[in-house]
Amino acid sequence: MSVSMYQISVPVCIRALTNLDNFLRKGQAYASEGNVKETVLLKSRLALDMFPLIKQVQIASDISKGVGARLAGIENLKFDDTEKSFAELYERLHKTVEFLSSISPEQLDGSEEKIVELKLPGIQMSFKGIDYLFSFALPNLSFHITTAYNILRHNGVKLGKADYLGDLPAI
Amino acid sequence: MSVSMYQISVPVCIRALTNLDNFLRKGQAYASEGNVKETVLLKSRLALDMFPLIKQVQIASDISKGVGARLAGIENLKFDDTEKSFAELYERLHKTVEFLSSISPEQLDGSEEKIVELKLPGIQMSFKGIDYLFSFALPNLSFHITTAYNILRHNGVKLGKADYLGDLPAI
Repeated sequence: MSVSMYQISVPVCIRALTNLDNFLRKGQAYASEGNVKETVLLKSRLALDMFPLIKQVQIASDISKGVGARLAGIENLKFDDTEKSFAELYERLHKTVEFLSSISPEQLDGSEEKIVELKLPGIQMSFKGIDYLFSFALPNLSFHITTAYNILRHNGVKLGKADYLGDLPAI
Repeated sequence: MSVSMYQISVPVCIRALTNLDNFLRKGQAYASEGNVKETVLLKSRLALDMFPLIKQVQIASDISKGVGARLAGIENLKFDDTEKSFAELYERLHKTVEFLSSISPEQLDGSEEKIVELKLPGIQMSFKGIDYLFSFALPNLSFHITTAYNILRHNGVKLGKADYLGDLPAI
């Protein structure tokens, strides 16, 4: 029994959002080189009934701030989902990381057993903190970040796995 | 300090592979309904220079068995990457889950500080077990499972987030 809830949640979300921010900038650069309009890229999707790029980023922000707020038991950050540009998405990611960075490891002590309430469209569920994190929040966060990556790749942006994983903390 | 390395690694991988197996079967059913040939679906990709569906599944298996073998310090399971059908992919996922299921929680005690060696094409890196898991293995596993999901969705298979997340351990 040797890992804290903090180290497997808040920094993991910050890292994932930082990588997302970095590869979104490559998507924006691809647009600015004249390959596609920013607004077209932000609205593109992998299937007609899947969310577009802009929404993938908004959801990645939502999941991350939800992890911090729910496990720490503090008021959540709110956004109006009005972003329409890369610049506004970076601003949202920046504010989300700032919010997560304000949470201390101590605020998450014992949160593995804490009851977390989750309201999804049409359903409300309760989880133990550890189950919320590993069965829902972290896989879901990776889902939306990977889908953002896949939308960019599908549209011709040159990205590689290193963009998704970010700098690796090798020793 | 209250979560074990086992509970945040081996069962997380088993759960992810089980969900992957379940939604692959929906892809196979879509093919068997005459929408596409199985072999075409298995070879489809989201970008010309991305891996096809079959390889996404092979890599998800590789990452998962790597987590078990590296953190437990035991010999890894080997596959020849010769799968050519859905049936062979299920068999591989089944064997991977069986391997992971044979690992006990005690075998992972202390693995958060254990040095994990990782050989990637052209590079070899060393990580602390906890960093290997959260900066590399788990995000990478979700990446390939999400990409498999996205390939199926992009090709018309009816899947939803519930297929990706699987049964949620709500209380």
